[in-house]
Amino acid sequence: MEQRVIDTLRNVFELNGFIGIETRAVEQGSSLLKKGETSKEIYLLSRLQEVGHESDTPIEDRLGLHFDLTVPLSRYVVEHSGDLAFPFKRWQIQKVWRGERPQEGRFREFVQADIDVIGNGDLPDHYEVELPLVMVSALERLREFGLPKATVHANNRKLSEGFYRGLGLTDVEGVLREIDKLDKIGADEVAKLLVEGCGANENQARACLELAELTAANGADLAEKFDALCAKHDIAADSDAYVLARQGLDTLAMIVDEAARIRPGSVIADLKIARGLDYYTGSVYETFLDGAASLGSICSGGRYDNLASQGNKKYPGVGLSIGLSRLVSYMLHAAGAHANRVSPASVLVAVWNEADRSASNVIANQLRARGIAADVAPTAAKLGKQIKYADKLGVPYVWFPSDAAEDGVGDEVKNIITGDQQPADARSWEPDTVYARQTVTVEA
Amino acid sequence: MEQRVIDTLRNVFELNGFIGIETRAVEQGSSLLKKGETSKEIYLLSRLQEVGHESDTPIEDRLGLHFDLTVPLSRYVVEHSGDLAFPFKRWQIQKVWRGERPQEGRFREFVQADIDVIGNGDLPDHYEVELPLVMVSALERLREFGLPKATVHANNRKLSEGFYRGLGLTDVEGVLREIDKLDKIGADEVAKLLVEGCGANENQARACLELAELTAANGADLAEKFDALCAKHDIAADSDAYVLARQGLDTLAMIVDEAARIRPGSVIADLKIARGLDYYTGSVYETFLDGAASLGSICSGGRYDNLASQGNKKYPGVGLSIGLSRLVSYMLHAAGAHANRVSPASVLVAVWNEADRSASNVIANQLRARGIAADVAPTAAKLGKQIKYADKLGVPYVWFPSDAAEDGVGDEVKNIITGDQQPADARSWEPDTVYARQTVTVEA
Repeated sequence: MEQRVIDTLRNVFELNGFIGIETRAVEQGSSLLKKGETSKEIYLLSRLQEVGHESDTPIEDRLGLHFDLTVPLSRYVVEHSGDLAFPFKRWQIQKVWRGERPQEGRFREFVQADIDVIGNGDLPDHYEVELPLVMVSALERLREFGLPKATVHANNRKLSEGFYRGLGLTDVEGVLREIDKLDKIGADEVAKLLVEGCGANENQARACLELAELTAANGADLAEKFDALCAKHDIAADSDAYVLARQGLDTLAMIVDEAARIRPGSVIADLKIARGLDYYTGSVYETFLDGAASLGSICSGGRYDNLASQGNKKYPGVGLSIGLSRLVSYMLHAAGAHANRVSPASVLVAVWNEADRSASNVIANQLRARGIAADVAPTAAKLGKQIKYADKLGVPYVWFPSDAAEDGVGDEVKNIITGDQQPADARSWEPDTVYARQTVTVEA
Repeated sequence: MEQRVIDTLRNVFELNGFIGIETRAVEQGSSLLKKGETSKEIYLLSRLQEVGHESDTPIEDRLGLHFDLTVPLSRYVVEHSGDLAFPFKRWQIQKVWRGERPQEGRFREFVQADIDVIGNGDLPDHYEVELPLVMVSALERLREFGLPKATVHANNRKLSEGFYRGLGLTDVEGVLREIDKLDKIGADEVAKLLVEGCGANENQARACLELAELTAANGADLAEKFDALCAKHDIAADSDAYVLARQGLDTLAMIVDEAARIRPGSVIADLKIARGLDYYTGSVYETFLDGAASLGSICSGGRYDNLASQGNKKYPGVGLSIGLSRLVSYMLHAAGAHANRVSPASVLVAVWNEADRSASNVIANQLRARGIAADVAPTAAKLGKQIKYADKLGVPYVWFPSDAAEDGVGDEVKNIITGDQQPADARSWEPDTVYARQTVTVEA
């Protein structure tokens, strides 16, 4: 299942011109620690010979496992900047590791599927609508596996920051962090936290909540409602704070209007989206599935202007990341499916006795040469046992080679689901596609 | 390149009925340490919060990264034995890590591609010829990427052990270890080491070398020459040592005869193959490429009867493993190719000015809907700059949307390699397959 999902995503990303890269799992501690907040979740490595002396090496000089695919991308872009054509659009689907205590539904090791576009010095803002739309079309393709419809919720850091500063608040990170809890703990609790922890008075706290709860049908509606809110809270249109907010607003309005034009209902403005990571500098995205609110965001990201740099050269980027392991778990659960150990083979070729095994091998090879996956019975056991083996493996057909001892009877193939048995020739027979196996990669 | 190689291997493995599994990269120290010899190369993990206290936890209770795919398979089989249909045939292609000091051409992190078949209690010996043949057919498919012909060299531990014991030698592991150096240091040096370190006298050492250098055209020839060697060194045909050796000989003779029948020249008997790992109990395999002796074995394995067990139940197995990263490095080097950052896109759609970007997006989406990977120019720069961007990305076609300002001129597409420019319709145009891009995954 996961493998088919990965193949589907890869196909969509490449259709959109993203280049696949793979980076090593192991990065320098100094790279991993840059990103602040999540640093507590890093797994550090030590060679067996170093046990007992690990602490001799400063953490920055030790090696650790990457905990996301953005930090490795930053390193990669800086290292290969001379060879890359910018803007550099890349997809990357790999495992990441978090050194946290495992909880139910949270893995220490999981797969992320990321797309990012990185500019050299600058990066046009049309990518801020194009990248979420690529993710939407990828998630749309996953609906064939039972995934519900996905909607991207977009916001903009500049909009929030400008508004908070316009209100006279200075602890912007703090306010964002509390607003992020809105869906979990409700407006009253958030207001309390804003007053207690972020230096807001009751009015300022309520204004932050009004912004978070603002909804709009389109870009113009959004701008109108935002301006009304600013007027209500005395944020002057010529203030630095308003100018900053307006930059964010214009980008967000462009995103929702352009997305509505190309794929209506795929991206909406949601002004309570805050995102925990402090490296986002503009657009931020979270993605929710219809009827799966408890799952939280399944695909998140944003624009970051300061993550990668080399001297005074900057590499701004826009990217989104799907938490693939969680998503696949959900799909398996929601679809009522489970990862059963199913053979990719369509056919099990029976073996009458060990001396005739090579005849069965010849048949299997004829089928394989025509792209039909085939297995051969492990032993010349009683026929019932061979059919039972096929059944346990989920192989729908059992092939009976012509028995040399029984004159005049040619090869036959039995569909063990329907019981139907027919004469067949390994050079031309095709399985009924209804029963042909799908390729399945099993989780562990 | 690596991705295409992986896709090819996966296809061959699944055509042969192997089930794909993926196991977590992280295993318990107690599992990882079981395997003895390579244990020094393990990377152990510690959470960032544990730094300075790592040694409080015994190594067995710590977590480490898997260094091969056999140890995880053993754990997997024991854990899921109730759900699996035995014999369980699985393929697995994943990264592994070795905590060794990096040297040139040796990676700390690399990809292995393994196939194994695991029996419950017993395992028929026909798998000892079938699995190397699956690997041969997989390697054969890689010849389209420039890989030379591969030949599997097979030996059998029982054959070697029986012969050594028949000679009166008891340090079987020691003798195997020294014989393994034959190609590197030559017969005289190996003889010296056998005398100095393994308790052999000059005659016994020479006899071991005679066995290692024995070659045979087929199974009968092998048996005849082996029996002559035993007679020469007074190993009685009714001795326990000979009986053991003869078991191994019979299996090896079956392997070379059966392989010669199915795929002549693919598997040969090579009695100096020893394999370093002490868990092999029967057949052992190494695989060499024509004209690439210095590369050493690219695909190795064998039969192991005692690796996985649960109480007094045993799970014997046969498996082979390709060191994929090394192989891909070699292929890139040998083919004179290099991992260039090439876009998967066949077409770059030009943008005349930012106001017309959406028209270009519509064209790109029409192409994508028909499976043609397309990119859109990042900015409405001068046309020369847009073509240069396509060229740098390796995109062969640039699409010129009809310019609304220029009446009567429709869409045109330019092949920037040949310079040919033609009218085109995004709903029907097809790229010339000669210039259509291949999907490329870049290494880092």
